[in-house]
Amino acid sequence: MDITQAERDAVYKVILSRRDVRGEFRPDPVPDEVLMRVLAAAHHAPSVGFMQPWDFIVVKNAKTKQSIRRAFEVAHAEAADMFDEDRREQYQSFKLEGIVESPVGICVTCDRSRHGPVVIGRTAIPEMDLFSSVCAVQNLWLAARAENLGLGWVSIIHNEALRDLLEIPEHIVPIAYLCMGYVSFFHEKPELEKAGWLAREELKSLIHHEHWTSGD
Amino acid sequence: MDITQAERDAVYKVILSRRDVRGEFRPDPVPDEVLMRVLAAAHHAPSVGFMQPWDFIVVKNAKTKQSIRRAFEVAHAEAADMFDEDRREQYQSFKLEGIVESPVGICVTCDRSRHGPVVIGRTAIPEMDLFSSVCAVQNLWLAARAENLGLGWVSIIHNEALRDLLEIPEHIVPIAYLCMGYVSFFHEKPELEKAGWLAREELKSLIHHEHWTSGD
Repeated sequence: MDITQAERDAVYKVILSRRDVRGEFRPDPVPDEVLMRVLAAAHHAPSVGFMQPWDFIVVKNAKTKQSIRRAFEVAHAEAADMFDEDRREQYQSFKLEGIVESPVGICVTCDRSRHGPVVIGRTAIPEMDLFSSVCAVQNLWLAARAENLGLGWVSIIHNEALRDLLEIPEHIVPIAYLCMGYVSFFHEKPELEKAGWLAREELKSLIHHEHWTSGD
Repeated sequence: MDITQAERDAVYKVILSRRDVRGEFRPDPVPDEVLMRVLAAAHHAPSVGFMQPWDFIVVKNAKTKQSIRRAFEVAHAEAADMFDEDRREQYQSFKLEGIVESPVGICVTCDRSRHGPVVIGRTAIPEMDLFSSVCAVQNLWLAARAENLGLGWVSIIHNEALRDLLEIPEHIVPIAYLCMGYVSFFHEKPELEKAGWLAREELKSLIHHEHWTSGD
C-alpha cells in the first residue's frame, strides 16, 4: 500500500505540531468513536514478539482525577526540592499537568507476564515489553493530534499512587498517565523551549556516522 | 494549526500499515534528504523535560553490518534454547532481522546524563529518559512508513555487543538497532499473527473504565 506525497506530508505535519499539552484543555467531551480511534491506533503499535502487552484504563470520574492530582502534587513538591535554588522558582512556575481540566485520562500499562515468560525478541533485552507500551503511547499521542486533540504525559507521579488509585494489580506496570481533550490552541514550540529552560538541540550534532563520535 | 480529515486519515493509514520489516528489503540506497527527514521526525518526539536524550548512529558499512549480524546470531542461538521444544523449531524458522540486506542501520541511543542529573519529569519515574528515546524510535518508524520505507527493530542482540561494535561510550544506553530501506512489499498483517504464533488481542478486552477490571 503506497503512501502518497500528500499523505506523507500530513504525517510530518502531525509529528511536528504535536505538543505536550498542560494548560489549554477545554472541557468539551471527547466522543466515544474518537476515543476508540485513538485507542485503536495505540493498539496497532509495534510490540515485541506481537505480545501486545498494553491495557488502557480510561478515567473520566472527577473524584478520581482529583485524587490523581493530589498524587501529582506530592511528587511535584518532592521534585522541587531536587532542583538547585536558582532553578527551583522557575520550575515551580511551570504548569506541568492538566489532570483535572482534561475530560479524559488514560493510563497505559504493561503486562509483562502476558503470553508466558519467553517472548520473541525480549530474550536479550528484557525492557522490550515496556518499550512496546511506550510505542503505543506515542501512536496514541500522534492519533490524538491528528484528531485535533491535545495530550499531555504526566510523569511527575509515583507508580505506586497510580496503582492504588486505579486498582492496578502488582504484576502490571503503569507506563504513562495521559491527559487528553480538545484545546483552545496548540503552542507553536514546546513550552520549555519557549521559556528558555532548554534549547532545541541541533539535529546534525546528534547524528554519528558508522560509529559514535565525541564532539567535533 | 488544524488537521483536516484527509490529513487525519493519512496518519491512520500510516499507523495501520506500518510493519516490522525483516525479509523484504531492497538494496536501493536511501537518499540523504529522506534519511534527514526521518531523523528530524525522530528528533521532534516528545522528551521528558525537553531533554532530547537521543543520538543516532547511521550504519552503512557492510563490514559493520556483518559484525552486527554475527552478534544477532549469538543472541538468537541463546534465545532458541529458552523456548519449549514444541515451539523452538517454529521460532528458528522465523526470519527476525534484515541487518545485512537493508541499506541503512540506525542505532538510537539515550544519554541519561544530558543536561545534568535533575530533569523535569524524571524525578519520580527514572526511566522517563529511556522512554523518550523510544518515542523517537516510534516517530522515526512512522516517518519511514510515510516515506514508503520499511523498518525493523532488531532486539535480539546484546547491548554490550552494540556498544563494542559502534564504539558507544559506557554512559550512553543503546535503545534500538533499526534496519531501514525500501521494500518489495509490506505484509498486510504482522508476520507473527499470520504464522499463528499469537493472535491479535481484541481491543475491547484491553480497555478498562475508571479502574482496572479483571476478566468479565
